[in-house]
Amino acid sequence: MVLFRRLLGDVLRDKRTQRGLTLREVSAEARVSLGYISEIERGQKEASSELLYSLCDALEVPLSDVLREVSDAVAVQELAAAVTSSGLTSLEPIRARNRSEVVASAA
Amino acid sequence: MVLFRRLLGDVLRDKRTQRGLTLREVSAEARVSLGYISEIERGQKEASSELLYSLCDALEVPLSDVLREVSDAVAVQELAAAVTSSGLTSLEPIRARNRSEVVASAA
Repeated sequence: MVLFRRLLGDVLRDKRTQRGLTLREVSAEARVSLGYISEIERGQKEASSELLYSLCDALEVPLSDVLREVSDAVAVQELAAAVTSSGLTSLEPIRARNRSEVVASAA
Repeated sequence: MVLFRRLLGDVLRDKRTQRGLTLREVSAEARVSLGYISEIERGQKEASSELLYSLCDALEVPLSDVLREVSDAVAVQELAAAVTSSGLTSLEPIRARNRSEVVASAA
């Protein structure tokens, strides 16, 4: 099962470390407890929509960017799951098929 | 404040109606109460990651597709907020700037 909060946590941690910010700094800026942000980054807690907005504001990153990166990470996990359930030993046929679907849906 | 659950609700409702499914059918398939799904679609309740997975499964739509559409909808609201705070009377300068940023980040 692909869990949104896991991949959201990964993206939020990446954004924070890319900006050279500590958990403490983001906690102070977003007015959210350090422990709670840490749990969100580790995918252990769901972030409410209000909290997600505050975190993005503190990180100075648009929420739409965060969601796009989570969507991309989810797509990778969906491909991996498709490969596992297909019993294929190579990723290539699935990758090629899904890539063309992605291009078609974006057009 | 751009709230994730509001735009997620819109996208989930669109996906359901595009497939011609009723709330009752999705409720039975996802094993989630009809009232709860209705509240999620109206952006009144947060969906847990497990529930979001079940809903996407019942709607036969990849979670990554749903998140990409939410990201796009959030981006539109962010643009509208930027226009409002800039005091501009025309959307065009902001639209043009952000569109080139989107293209650059996608490259």
